[in-house]
Amino acid sequence: MEDNRIRVGITQGDVNGVGYEVILKTFSEPLMLELCTPIIYGSPKVAAYHRKSLDINASFSIVNSASEAAPNKLSVVNCSDDEVKVEFSKADPEAGKAALDALERAIEEYKQGLIDVIVTAPINKHTIQSETFDFPGHTEYIERKLGNGAKSLMILMKDDFRVALVTGHIPVSQIASTITKDLIKEKIAIFNKSLKQDFSIGRPRIAVLSLNPHAGDDGLLGKEEQEIISPALQEMNDEGVICYGPYAADGFMGSENYMRFDGILAMYHDQGLAPFKALAMDEGVNYTAGLPVIRTSPAHGTAYDIAGQGIASEDSFRKAVYVALDIFRNRCRDKEARVNPLRKQYYEKRDDSDKLKLDSIDDDM
Amino acid sequence: MEDNRIRVGITQGDVNGVGYEVILKTFSEPLMLELCTPIIYGSPKVAAYHRKSLDINASFSIVNSASEAAPNKLSVVNCSDDEVKVEFSKADPEAGKAALDALERAIEEYKQGLIDVIVTAPINKHTIQSETFDFPGHTEYIERKLGNGAKSLMILMKDDFRVALVTGHIPVSQIASTITKDLIKEKIAIFNKSLKQDFSIGRPRIAVLSLNPHAGDDGLLGKEEQEIISPALQEMNDEGVICYGPYAADGFMGSENYMRFDGILAMYHDQGLAPFKALAMDEGVNYTAGLPVIRTSPAHGTAYDIAGQGIASEDSFRKAVYVALDIFRNRCRDKEARVNPLRKQYYEKRDDSDKLKLDSIDDDM
Repeated sequence: MEDNRIRVGITQGDVNGVGYEVILKTFSEPLMLELCTPIIYGSPKVAAYHRKSLDINASFSIVNSASEAAPNKLSVVNCSDDEVKVEFSKADPEAGKAALDALERAIEEYKQGLIDVIVTAPINKHTIQSETFDFPGHTEYIERKLGNGAKSLMILMKDDFRVALVTGHIPVSQIASTITKDLIKEKIAIFNKSLKQDFSIGRPRIAVLSLNPHAGDDGLLGKEEQEIISPALQEMNDEGVICYGPYAADGFMGSENYMRFDGILAMYHDQGLAPFKALAMDEGVNYTAGLPVIRTSPAHGTAYDIAGQGIASEDSFRKAVYVALDIFRNRCRDKEARVNPLRKQYYEKRDDSDKLKLDSIDDDM
Repeated sequence: MEDNRIRVGITQGDVNGVGYEVILKTFSEPLMLELCTPIIYGSPKVAAYHRKSLDINASFSIVNSASEAAPNKLSVVNCSDDEVKVEFSKADPEAGKAALDALERAIEEYKQGLIDVIVTAPINKHTIQSETFDFPGHTEYIERKLGNGAKSLMILMKDDFRVALVTGHIPVSQIASTITKDLIKEKIAIFNKSLKQDFSIGRPRIAVLSLNPHAGDDGLLGKEEQEIISPALQEMNDEGVICYGPYAADGFMGSENYMRFDGILAMYHDQGLAPFKALAMDEGVNYTAGLPVIRTSPAHGTAYDIAGQGIASEDSFRKAVYVALDIFRNRCRDKEARVNPLRKQYYEKRDDSDKLKLDSIDDDM
């Protein structure tokens, strides 16, 4: 019998944080192994250490590569020659190196077609820095390694509540000067395409937040809304993208208007993520949209403050696996639907020619 | 029998918004009239128009001044010579003038000691502008008129969840340059004093948010945390104020850490108000701390989108009345407790003198 379960590559992240705890808790549930075939990139010894010290009932097999991963089992690929010592809650360059080794191996096997999607456990952004990793985080690294030149868009999501950012990890002093019409248009375009292709929404509705308080209050509190954001929205509307705004962030998030849209584009990090996490932290998922690869992660970090105590919730990680599976399936369906599109059987409006254009394919995406 | 109910002056705000609706709904509940003596500064005709068109069962008496307001009744002081025409949802300079007339009359009667606290219904910040009103909003106007030189601090609150702002109605491009060590210290000091005096919290705990994402990530995403915010916190701690931080806003609001503090000081408008409103919009109250006068207002605005439909919730306005009453009582108690303080009956530490300092009064506030 052919097994067509989706192969989920999971990177171990920082071994001194809550990564292994949420991974093992997630796959201690046998049903999860019927949904997908999970492969952890990390270290069997470290996995066993976490399992024992946290008393989690999850068994796993040691494999040399994802190609050996069997269905109905949790597999672990050893990615480090060195012994990795676990010291809960410690920021340790060795743990950083182990996290990077695992990530690089997962990327390599993804390129070989051995895994279908990638779910990353949290890293410590300081200890992972090295000659080969000089990025603010996973998102930028994966964009470089697996993006084929495509630009990524960070989406934080819980069910149908999806928040994306125009600017991300930059100081507040640089936000206003970084926001341009082209940047906003680029982000709206990626968001729109992802909502269609990855979330199967036919005609996505995107809400765009304002930069300044009260949406600039007609220019009293800043001109960017009038000069940059509104023109960007107008041009995207002209291109057929359904986007509204700019909305003042506080009123928008407070009035539950956010539930009427498929996606919300915030101008900067805290504007989008502070209300998102206030509303949806526990089950939030971070999805890197815009790239050929499907990569998700939980919305939380290494959580050193509770590492090793057995009290971390696996909800966010489990959701990250679900989201990766959903997106993979949606993309497959999307691709299938496009293999043999119906040809146009009608006259083009505003076309003087009388000829039926039976050979033109509508590839609007 | 002497009536010692607290006299609440209520300004009508924009007559084309939801102001009268939430005021009349609040005082249609007879119990509210046992808690306080409410005096609306506005127009009896306009009040009657709203009452009729929204079918709200609230009776009121027309008085010439708060001095005539009787207990167990809702009173209305007419503040305009002109006829004011109500056109729901319309931004109208005449409505703006009527809002300002009411506000000025309330301030005048407050100065005469005829009312104890002020609760303001929402205004339209554009239509109210005139030669005498050239301010971003109520807060700044009342600070000028009734502040006696004191600086105000805007606090958005719901029960024990209180968010104050270091900077308010300024463009995002000016946030970083406006944040200084002295400004942060000033805001923490006002916040601390208000939490003690207005909310009867003996030793308030204040959380301070970071300016940049991830609290600047050790300087990778901005230096203000290291150079400005942390030194400000250190100096305030040295002065005996209990303040912690700076915390990254998204993680802080997501982890429910906010519930462990009596007050949260955000660096700018959307950082504080977007998560606050996401969590507590419906019953949020805006309190102008730091001034001799006690002034509160609902957290919402004129809500033109639902004005005249009878569907506005009065919860936020009712809470604004409650908060004003609570603060008035807390301040009275605080003042009473300080009239005849216990004198020190102990030797000062680190004091070489052997004399008992029986005449020094501890006026730490």
